Amino acid sequence: MTSAQSKSSAGNFFEDFRLGQSFRHATPRTVTTGDVALNLALTGSRFPVQSAAGFAGTIGLLGAPLDDLLVFHIAIAKTVPDISVNAVANLGYADLRFETRAYPGDTLSTVSEVTGLRPTSDGKAGIVYVRSLTRNQYDENVVSWNRWVMVRKRNESAETPETHVPDLPSLVPAEALTVPAGADFSGYDTDAAGSPHLWEDYEVGERIDHIDGMSIGDSEHMMATQLYQNTARVHLDRHLAQGSRFGQPLVYGGHVMSLARALSFNGLANAAFIAAINGGRHAAPSFAGDTIYAWSAVLDRQPLPNRADVGALRLRTVATKNRPCGDFPGAEGDDPSVVLDLDYWVLMPRRG
Amino acid sequence: MTSAQSKSSAGNFFEDFRLGQSFRHATPRTVTTGDVALNLALTGSRFPVQSAAGFAGTIGLLGAPLDDLLVFHIAIAKTVPDISVNAVANLGYADLRFETRAYPGDTLSTVSEVTGLRPTSDGKAGIVYVRSLTRNQYDENVVSWNRWVMVRKRNESAETPETHVPDLPSLVPAEALTVPAGADFSGYDTDAAGSPHLWEDYEVGERIDHIDGMSIGDSEHMMATQLYQNTARVHLDRHLAQGSRFGQPLVYGGHVMSLARALSFNGLANAAFIAAINGGRHAAPSFAGDTIYAWSAVLDRQPLPNRADVGALRLRTVATKNRPCGDFPGAEGDDPSVVLDLDYWVLMPRRG
Amino acid sequence: MTSAQSKSSAGNFFEDFRLGQSFRHATPRTVTTGDVALNLALTGSRFPVQSAAGFAGTIGLLGAPLDDLLVFHIAIAKTVPDISVNAVANLGYADLRFETRAYPGDTLSTVSEVTGLRPTSDGKAGIVYVRSLTRNQYDENVVSWNRWVMVRKRNESAETPETHVPDLPSLVPAEALTVPAGADFSGYDTDAAGSPHLWEDYEVGERIDHIDGMSIGDSEHMMATQLYQNTARVHLDRHLAQGSRFGQPLVYGGHVMSLARALSFNGLANAAFIAAINGGRHAAPSFAGDTIYAWSAVLDRQPLPNRADVGALRLRTVATKNRPCGDFPGAEGDDPSVVLDLDYWVLMPRRG
Repeated sequence: MTSAQSKSSAGNFFEDFRLGQSFRHATPRTVTTGDVALNLALTGSRFPVQSAAGFAGTIGLLGAPLDDLLVFHIAIAKTVPDISVNAVANLGYADLRFETRAYPGDTLSTVSEVTGLRPTSDGKAGIVYVRSLTRNQYDENVVSWNRWVMVRKRNESAETPETHVPDLPSLVPAEALTVPAGADFSGYDTDAAGSPHLWEDYEVGERIDHIDGMSIGDSEHMMATQLYQNTARVHLDRHLAQGSRFGQPLVYGGHVMSLARALSFNGLANAAFIAAINGGRHAAPSFAGDTIYAWSAVLDRQPLPNRADVGALRLRTVATKNRPCGDFPGAEGDDPSVVLDLDYWVLMPRRG
Repeated sequence: MTSAQSKSSAGNFFEDFRLGQSFRHATPRTVTTGDVALNLALTGSRFPVQSAAGFAGTIGLLGAPLDDLLVFHIAIAKTVPDISVNAVANLGYADLRFETRAYPGDTLSTVSEVTGLRPTSDGKAGIVYVRSLTRNQYDENVVSWNRWVMVRKRNESAETPETHVPDLPSLVPAEALTVPAGADFSGYDTDAAGSPHLWEDYEVGERIDHIDGMSIGDSEHMMATQLYQNTARVHLDRHLAQGSRFGQPLVYGGHVMSLARALSFNGLANAAFIAAINGGRHAAPSFAGDTIYAWSAVLDRQPLPNRADVGALRLRTVATKNRPCGDFPGAEGDDPSVVLDLDYWVLMPRRG
Repeated sequence: MTSAQSKSSAGNFFEDFRLGQSFRHATPRTVTTGDVALNLALTGSRFPVQSAAGFAGTIGLLGAPLDDLLVFHIAIAKTVPDISVNAVANLGYADLRFETRAYPGDTLSTVSEVTGLRPTSDGKAGIVYVRSLTRNQYDENVVSWNRWVMVRKRNESAETPETHVPDLPSLVPAEALTVPAGADFSGYDTDAAGSPHLWEDYEVGERIDHIDGMSIGDSEHMMATQLYQNTARVHLDRHLAQGSRFGQPLVYGGHVMSLARALSFNGLANAAFIAAINGGRHAAPSFAGDTIYAWSAVLDRQPLPNRADVGALRLRTVATKNRPCGDFPGAEGDDPSVVLDLDYWVLMPRRG
C-alpha cells in the first residue's frame, strides 16, 4: 500500500551532503557503571583512575571517570546513521579534544557540521569532512573532533558539490590540553597503580613494547559495536559481509583502539587520561580471531601551563595483528601487520 | 549412599501438570543498569526513552525505564525450570500486557497457573497452557501473559489429564493498554529521537523495511539467555545439541524478538513502549552466525482513552534470517526465511 | 634510542622470587552492579541472595552481596602480573576464607607474600607458594588464600633459592567460617529460593547430579578473564596459543569454577554462600565449545558456633567437560572428563 523505506532510512550518500550542513544526532545516551563493566570485559583495561573510585579519590575526583575511549566510541557512534552508514572507509581523525570528563550517570548527545566535501576522481564516491561535538547533560563540551570518511554515491551520475577541503591542524598544542576538573595528581599512588614510571622518566624517542596480546572474539567486537549503538553495517551484518571482498564483518576500528590502549598499560600504566588525539589511521582491517599487539613511541614531552603535578606525553601507538611487537613493526616504513597508527597526548603525573 | 537427583530436579514432564496448579517461581531478580548495558551490547537498541535518563525526563519519567522485552525475557525465564525445561516447542503467546513499567533497581518475581492441558494425538507429549504474572517489589503487576508449550512425557504410558483448552483472546483491546505512570508525551523531542514520524503519520496497511541486519554471535545468544537466568537446555548445552536434529544450540527466541525490536528503530523510532503482545510465533529456529533482518506492517492505529499526547499502533513485525526484507518476505504466505512473526501494540507520541 | 621493555614488564620468572617477598598488586578495582550483570550473563547463576536485593533483605542484608567467586576471580587476577603471568600450571589452593562480604561499590586491593619456593627436579622451573589477601576500602579482610603455581625460569642456568615448602592446612575448620555480618537466616524463604532442602536435609556421603550442562563460548571465557583484569596470556592470546601444545587458548579455570557453582543451584539452591575453599584442582584444561556439567558430594555437615539459623556443608564439586554426571564420573578414581575437583564449605540455612 505504501512504499518500503518511507519511514526508515538507508542513510545519506555523498550527493546528500552540503557544506555547512548540521546534524543533531539521535539518540542521547546515558552511560552507567554497566557500560564501565562491559568496557572492562571487552578490553581488560587496567588504568587505575578509571578502575577504582578510591584511586580516583586520591587525585581529587569524586568517583571513577569513564574511560576516555569508551566515551569517544559512544560519542562517534551517534554520528554513524547520518554520516557514515554508507562509508567505504574511515580515513582519518584530527584535533580530537577531551574537555569535560564524563562520569557514570552522564548523558551524552552529539551534533555535527559538514566542514568539507571532495568527490573522488572516479566520481563514484566522495570524502565528507565533519566536525562533531559531544556534550553532557549540563551542555558542557565532553569531546570534539574532526573526521573524514569516504562515502558512496547513491547515484553515480548525481551532481556533486564543489570541492572544499578544511584546514585541519595536525597537532593539538600541549597548552590547549585540558586537565580533568578537580584533579590534583600530587597524591597519585604509583604503588597502587603498578608502575613507578612518571612523566619525567619518559624520553622523547623512547620506544616501549607492550608485550601482551589480546585476541578478538567473534561476539566481543559485535557486542562492543552494539554497546556503542554504532549501526555501521560492515561491522554487524555477517550476511552482507559474505558478499564483500573480506567475506566477513570488519572489527570496528575503535575496538582496536581500545585494545591498544588497554595493552599500553604495560609500559604506560600512569598515562591516566587521553587528553587529545592528533591523528590516527586504521591501516588495515581486523577480523574476529585476530590477536592484537601494540608498541608505543614517545613523540614529545611537554609541561602543562601552571601545573607541577601533571604533564603531557605525545605518544605514537602502533597496533598489529598476529605479530608481537618486540621489534617495533612499522617503525620505519609500512608493515603489513599494522592495523592502527595513533598519534595522541596523554596526561601523566609528574614527580612534582 | 543416596540416589542421584534426590535434591536436584529434571523439571516437570507433561504428566506432572494439573489444571489449576500454581507455581511461585524461583528466584526473584533485581534488575540494574548493568542489565541495561548488557541489553544494549546484545541488541544495539536505540529507543531513546530507554537509552537516556534525560530523554525519559522530557516525558515526565524520573529515569530511563527498562526495555520492555528485557523485562519480559527476565520474567518468562523464571517459569522455565517449572514449566518448559522439558518443552519440545514454544507454541504461542496471547494477551501479554505490560502494566507498571520497571526501572533499574526493581526486583521481579513471577507466579504461574496452569490454565489448560491437551495431550498430543500420539500420546508422547502434551500442550501445557500457562498464565503467568510478574510483579515488582511493591506487588504491582509489571507484565502478565499466556503461553503454551509442548512438553514431553517422562513416561509415554503415563495417564494424562482430561483435555482443557483455555479461551484466549487473539487481541488485547486498545482501551486496555497502559500508558506508563507519569508519562506525558507532549514534551517528546523528535529531533533527539531521530525521526519526525509520529502516530498520525502511520497508515493502516503501511509496510516498513527496517533495512539493517544484525548477526547473532555464538556467545551473544548464550549470554543473553544466561543473563535472563533462563535454563532451557536447547539454548545452552552444545553437547546435548550435538545429538539433536539441529546439531547445535537453538538461539533463544526472545533474543530474536529483541533483535527485531532493535532493528525496528529504523522506521519506528518513536514507538517508545511495547504495550501488549497479541500473539507471536517463532516460525523457525535461528543459530549462531545467522543475520536477522526485519520488516513491519501497521495493522491498526487507535487512540487511547483520554489521551491526546499518545496513541497506539498495532504492528506486525516479521524477522527473517539471512535475507534482507526489502520485499517483505512472508507478507503473503509462508517464507522459509521467516523466524519470527509478532503481533503487538506500541505506544507512540501524537502531534497532540 | 632506549631499549624495548624498559618500561613494560614481562613479569617475574622463578629465579626472581625470594622467600618472604611481598607484593602490593596493581590495580585497585571498584566492583559494581555492572559486574554483577556480567557475572550473570557469563554464568547464569541463580542463587537468590546474590540475585535479588529484596531476598537479601529477608536475611537482614542491606542489599545483594557480590557472588563469592566473582570476588575471588577479581581478587586473584590482581596477583597475575606479579606472580603467575609466566606460570606453566596453577597447581593448587589451600585455606581460602571469605571473611567480610563485598557489595557493589566496594573497592578491592590485593597484597601477597611468597611463603615457599621449590625448584623442579629438571631445574627449568619452580613452584612458588603465595599467600594473598584482598581487602576492601575500609581495610577489612574480604578474602585470603594460599596458592601454588609452577613458574618457568627465564634463564635455566640461573641460581635458584633454597627449597622451602610451607605447611598448608588441608581443611579450614568449620568453627573458623565467617557468617556474613548482619545475616540472620531465620527469615530465609525457601519458596522464593526454589528449593525446600535445608542444612538438615543433606546427609554426609550424599551425591547430587546437577543435571544441566552449560557451554563455554569463545568470547564468554575471554570476556570473563578480561572482566577480572586477569592478564594471563594462556587465556587471552590466540596467536601465542597456536604455537602451544593445545593450539588454542585455555579457558580460565576460575570460569569453570563459576560455571560449576552456577550449575550446582540445581540441587544446592540454598547453599547461599561459599565460606571457604579447602582445596581445589584444575584436573584438565577446557576450551571454547566445551560443555560443563557437575556433580557434588556432601563431605561433612557441621553446625556453626552460636548459630541455630545456619550451618555449614563441606562439599566436593566435580565438573566435567562434554559428559553428563548422572553416574558421578571421577567419584572413584580418575576420569578423563573431569576438569575441576573442588573441596569447599558452603553456608546453608537450618530449620532452626
